[in-house]
Amino acid sequence: PQDSPAERSSYDLAVIGGDGIGPEVVAEGLKVLEALDLPAKFSITSYDLGAERWQRTGEVLPDSVLSELAAADAILLGAVGAAPGGKTVPSGLLERGLLLKLRFAFDHYVNLRPSKLYPGVPTPLADGVVKDKDVDFVVVREGTEGLYVGNGGVVRAGTPAEIATEVSINTAYGVERVVRDAYERARKRRGKLTLVHKHNVLVHAGGLWRRCFETVGEEFGDVTTDYLHVDAATIFLATDPARFDVIVTDNLFGDILTDLAAAVTGGIGLAASGNINPSGAYPSMFEPVHGSAPDIAGQGKADPTATILSVALLLDHLGLNDAARRIEQVVTADIAARPGLAGPRSTTQVGDAIAAAV
Amino acid sequence: PQDSPAERSSYDLAVIGGDGIGPEVVAEGLKVLEALDLPAKFSITSYDLGAERWQRTGEVLPDSVLSELAAADAILLGAVGAAPGGKTVPSGLLERGLLLKLRFAFDHYVNLRPSKLYPGVPTPLADGVVKDKDVDFVVVREGTEGLYVGNGGVVRAGTPAEIATEVSINTAYGVERVVRDAYERARKRRGKLTLVHKHNVLVHAGGLWRRCFETVGEEFGDVTTDYLHVDAATIFLATDPARFDVIVTDNLFGDILTDLAAAVTGGIGLAASGNINPSGAYPSMFEPVHGSAPDIAGQGKADPTATILSVALLLDHLGLNDAARRIEQVVTADIAARPGLAGPRSTTQVGDAIAAAV
Ligand SMILES: CC(C)[C@H](C(=O)O)[C@@H](O)C(=O)O
Ligand SMILES: CC(C)[C@H](C(=O)O)[C@@H](O)C(=O)O
Repeated sequence: PQDSPAERSSYDLAVIGGDGIGPEVVAEGLKVLEALDLPAKFSITSYDLGAERWQRTGEVLPDSVLSELAAADAILLGAVGAAPGGKTVPSGLLERGLLLKLRFAFDHYVNLRPSKLYPGVPTPLADGVVKDKDVDFVVVREGTEGLYVGNGGVVRAGTPAEIATEVSINTAYGVERVVRDAYERARKRRGKLTLVHKHNVLVHAGGLWRRCFETVGEEFGDVTTDYLHVDAATIFLATDPARFDVIVTDNLFGDILTDLAAAVTGGIGLAASGNINPSGAYPSMFEPVHGSAPDIAGQGKADPTATILSVALLLDHLGLNDAARRIEQVVTADIAARPGLAGPRSTTQVGDAIAAAV
Repeated sequence: PQDSPAERSSYDLAVIGGDGIGPEVVAEGLKVLEALDLPAKFSITSYDLGAERWQRTGEVLPDSVLSELAAADAILLGAVGAAPGGKTVPSGLLERGLLLKLRFAFDHYVNLRPSKLYPGVPTPLADGVVKDKDVDFVVVREGTEGLYVGNGGVVRAGTPAEIATEVSINTAYGVERVVRDAYERARKRRGKLTLVHKHNVLVHAGGLWRRCFETVGEEFGDVTTDYLHVDAATIFLATDPARFDVIVTDNLFGDILTDLAAAVTGGIGLAASGNINPSGAYPSMFEPVHGSAPDIAGQGKADPTATILSVALLLDHLGLNDAARRIEQVVTADIAARPGLAGPRSTTQVGDAIAAAV
């Protein structure tokens, strides 16, 4: 959290709607933000970034925009990704040039992804697995290292003698700080922290993660710890997700586990995330885990709940915790009422209902 | 498959029971093998390898044993891994020194892992997800490259300035051959092949995998293809596993996906696997996906079905396909009868029942 959050009377919020359903869900997130009775004002600046901009102008993230974003207090992002047809966006262009660029430039080392099975939400898991159980955990995914650094290369591309490498880079500096953040979150929750890695195969990086996990753990005697290989962790997510409280893991394992976690707790329509720099040196960025879903864009079909919950994470990060709790309460009630509703509501109807209730 | 399998009148089978429940489940696998009416004889040589041997002798896999194994026609492995207490086995020692050593030394580039939801088997997935659906797919996991090569290292270990790297190595040689194998398997099944990778982030290796997938695909016009990012693939395994026929993926993604696949199709008690060198230049190795489960070792509680199904994969590899189908039929019937049985059967009772029926 920022220093002295209570003293701030206004925040600059940068908003990147993006492509597809991105702008639609972000509009609902902002609607809820405006409807809250907040002790501070948010002044909003919108940025036109994503596949559409690249197709139109050839620009992904101009330096001038990066500088402006750096001056914001926080960023809210919808989703980026092109619709089929049109000028094809090369694989990785927006991911590396925009999403990951922001995570790396703003040192978002805590990629925070809560997973909660709200009462009444349909889950692909059988009743016996989740019924009457409290499935409520967060994954603290490292956001600035590992295989996401882009290191590696290709030799003799396109020939039968081609070699391609990917280098996972892990530092004590990077691992220690995210592990510490996870211990702190576990201490404030149910006091249980699980390290997920694959140290029996990835012995170099695995050793570093284990050592950091143990060393930092000495300062957190009140937190119970355990360890799972990533393959075993997927089994538990499918067979006993209630066993988890806080999971800490590397960038790639976190990517995989959080999509699965979202799936078992009601789908990526509900999954919020924060790309957080806890020091406040750079703005943190909040975004739904889902993508731009061009197939349903413009039809009012997208569920804005994940974005609205991302706004709650944003408020928490800025120290406006009461407002964050208020959003969560209202969302919980809204979700609980959904199975009884006559039919699906539109994107704006969901946003209107939650905005009216906060 | 080997050359001219039908002409062989006998096979040398190397058996590594291993630790914990390994020897128990392997005994049942061999019982079923012996009970079959086979056109060829199997002569069996047992090898004492695993945590227990290392604790006793300090040896993991002596060169002389590796040479003997190399001369076998196939290998059946139970599981390796130490019981808690006793002399602690360093993380990775048995994995790198024995399991992966064999996969690499014998060039097991096809790590074959079928997943089938047998009627009557409890699954953690809700009825709506799997009921009346045909969940029956195989993962063709690359077995000799990627992050499993062990490349990488550690600088300044144990200090605050530590750096640890892991290098994923991918070659056209290695990717092309496993992709081709997967296309061939898809052609013999329902004609659908899914590539799983993460090419929007792992652009170097991802590019190589994509190119190989497309190029080889030109020879398989009858196979329908699609692509999923690994994170999205976990969502589909939890929400719509029936969509898959054959999945081809790299070593690490395959490790993760197959544990999840096993979980959603009844658990690792049923998951068989083959570490296959399709050329026959080296012996292929068959093993249940589960581990040594020291907590239930010696109590007759382990389910030998995964090992018995691994024997079926072994027979298929040797060209004894009728016998393999016979095992599968009997296992299917046995599994279907399980929910009606009074109580759980012991390891030997399951093996006896299946052996009697084949
Ligand atoms: C789009 C992609 C770069 C991204 C990631 O891999 O981190 C996404 O999957 C996510 O989880 O936010
Ligand atoms: C034990 C370990 C080395 C192995 C792997 O990671 O391949 C196991 O998880 C498997 O899937 O066979």
